[in-house]
Amino acid sequence: MNGRFHAVYRVRSDAADIQARAQGIAVEQSVEMPLAAIDDPAVLSDIVGTVVSIQQVDDRLFDVRIALASDTVGDDAGQCMNMLFGNTSLQDDTILLDADVPATFGGVRQGLAALRSRLGVAARAFAGSALKPQGMPVARLAALAERFAMGGLDFIKDDHGLADQRYSPFAERVPAIAEAVARATRSTGHPTRYIPSLSGDLDAMRAQLRLAQACGLDCAMLAPAIAGFATLRTLADAFPDFVLFAHPALGGAARIAPDLLIGKLFPAFGAGGAIFPTYGGRFGYSQDTCQRLAGNARANDSLPIPAGGMTLARTAEILDFYGADTMLLIGGNLLMARERIPEESARFARAVADHPYR
Amino acid sequence: MNGRFHAVYRVRSDAADIQARAQGIAVEQSVEMPLAAIDDPAVLSDIVGTVVSIQQVDDRLFDVRIALASDTVGDDAGQCMNMLFGNTSLQDDTILLDADVPATFGGVRQGLAALRSRLGVAARAFAGSALKPQGMPVARLAALAERFAMGGLDFIKDDHGLADQRYSPFAERVPAIAEAVARATRSTGHPTRYIPSLSGDLDAMRAQLRLAQACGLDCAMLAPAIAGFATLRTLADAFPDFVLFAHPALGGAARIAPDLLIGKLFPAFGAGGAIFPTYGGRFGYSQDTCQRLAGNARANDSLPIPAGGMTLARTAEILDFYGADTMLLIGGNLLMARERIPEESARFARAVADHPYR
Repeated sequence: MNGRFHAVYRVRSDAADIQARAQGIAVEQSVEMPLAAIDDPAVLSDIVGTVVSIQQVDDRLFDVRIALASDTVGDDAGQCMNMLFGNTSLQDDTILLDADVPATFGGVRQGLAALRSRLGVAARAFAGSALKPQGMPVARLAALAERFAMGGLDFIKDDHGLADQRYSPFAERVPAIAEAVARATRSTGHPTRYIPSLSGDLDAMRAQLRLAQACGLDCAMLAPAIAGFATLRTLADAFPDFVLFAHPALGGAARIAPDLLIGKLFPAFGAGGAIFPTYGGRFGYSQDTCQRLAGNARANDSLPIPAGGMTLARTAEILDFYGADTMLLIGGNLLMARERIPEESARFARAVADHPYR
Repeated sequence: MNGRFHAVYRVRSDAADIQARAQGIAVEQSVEMPLAAIDDPAVLSDIVGTVVSIQQVDDRLFDVRIALASDTVGDDAGQCMNMLFGNTSLQDDTILLDADVPATFGGVRQGLAALRSRLGVAARAFAGSALKPQGMPVARLAALAERFAMGGLDFIKDDHGLADQRYSPFAERVPAIAEAVARATRSTGHPTRYIPSLSGDLDAMRAQLRLAQACGLDCAMLAPAIAGFATLRTLADAFPDFVLFAHPALGGAARIAPDLLIGKLFPAFGAGGAIFPTYGGRFGYSQDTCQRLAGNARANDSLPIPAGGMTLARTAEILDFYGADTMLLIGGNLLMARERIPEESARFARAVADHPYR
């Protein structure tokens, strides 16, 4: 009834001011008003956030741990984000560094174990690629998917830019690609999964998932920071057999620590796979961040999926770093192979299969 | 068919690298793959983003204007955010500074003009306050609303922390507060509006709006960055008589220029009122940012609503700054009046009514 959960904020501040600043965050993220104007003792004791600890990181940097009331969140994923960082996200001295996500969110419905059993892949990493560029007609996307699948990849996902555009509408694209991939799997014997990208509002995404289900698919992807956090939770519960992959687009990761947002919060709200920009690619995450993010995702039964500038040449290095519980997602670099896509896909699939996992 | 819209990114870069970095953003925000791997000439000419101009701001800062294809967005507000800043939000050298929002989004359904006519307020600013703290039972929130309304305020909104918690569930809270405010308006003769805060997923918000409608309300608030951008657009279209107020929570404003996100994008997706943290309060926005944000909102028929640490003593200064097309939102500072809330509310309402607008 009066449970608390902790959030950790990294705050830039003078040492002389940090006590007051910490208390300010505790108030902002709970009652958002002067405590002097509160005359209800139950609100003061049960609802107002409290400062648990303040730890100095360096000269002008502090980690402030605050206990928030679980009752303020209930079981609404959106409200969880609101209580964790709603107003404080607007203050430029603070990032949300970590949090114990309330257990009420139920976490992942279908995650790592489901992926391993569906693909028949026991102890190695997964190999995936992405359908690009947007703008191509459905038939060309389907042909590309078939060539990836003929190479024996485990997953083929829509590029996250593929929505419901006139040049490849979801309702035409997904059945055609599902059929193309199914054709390839009958030939290869490997149960390659196609991951369509969901877009629009909750109604649209529900209709898209129903169509995907009718096409025999059991995976899909969405971007929770765009679609709404409650949307992910609702879909994960409404389609309990689907593995939902979280795309980090619009993740504002500069203000919310990515190992928290992508590694903990997305899985808490139901994502069985968490895509993130790996170190050494087009994005700026450090090895430390990636290691923590992947560890968090795994601990929450969600598959960590490093992406964003991966290349075939890096396969061994990346697998050494992330281990077997991961999916390597190589997009543009595989597409560069053009007419040799099936062969390069096969080389990629083999590299993942034959890697000496430790 | 082949229309383009512009987005402007502010990029930290060495002068020697900015050309390549700009081209990188144009590719990332459109096809997200090596151009060398694209063999469809229509994609290269119609879909790939193009760098329109690069303007040097200072030593290591550049404004990069990129033309994106309108076809990549369609009429999906979420996809608009995805194309504007999806992946680039993950790169810490770049903020999204400005954009011409595609006209397909239809903008505000009920905005400034509706608010003026419904309240019978011609040429002055609006005065509002907020129901806090969360944790109080419904009866106390309703009593507080009645006291605000007895003071003649124009708007009384739920605190954005009020969701659907067990201590004040939406289905009990909103009818009780609507009734209390209606009672006060019968006594004052002034048609004070109550603005309930929506939470949960699209289904939950729709049910909440139906209930609000049944209670005779015609205003509501949501946080698009939490609820999902398409959620706002869908609700604005489904409830065309409602004024929807956008709350900036989780706005990640450090990476998306707030005058764009709050002043342009939220109105484009249907928000008739745009709440933002004003200069000189608890948040860090400058006067320049606030001026631009408010100007953008007005230009899009949305009411700019400065908030976040407003006080009665600042009324004249704030009204001089924002003019008549605004709502002053004073929360905690009014609540400090405790038993004199109706009198202080009346003083606030009078200060707004009697201000010499220029």
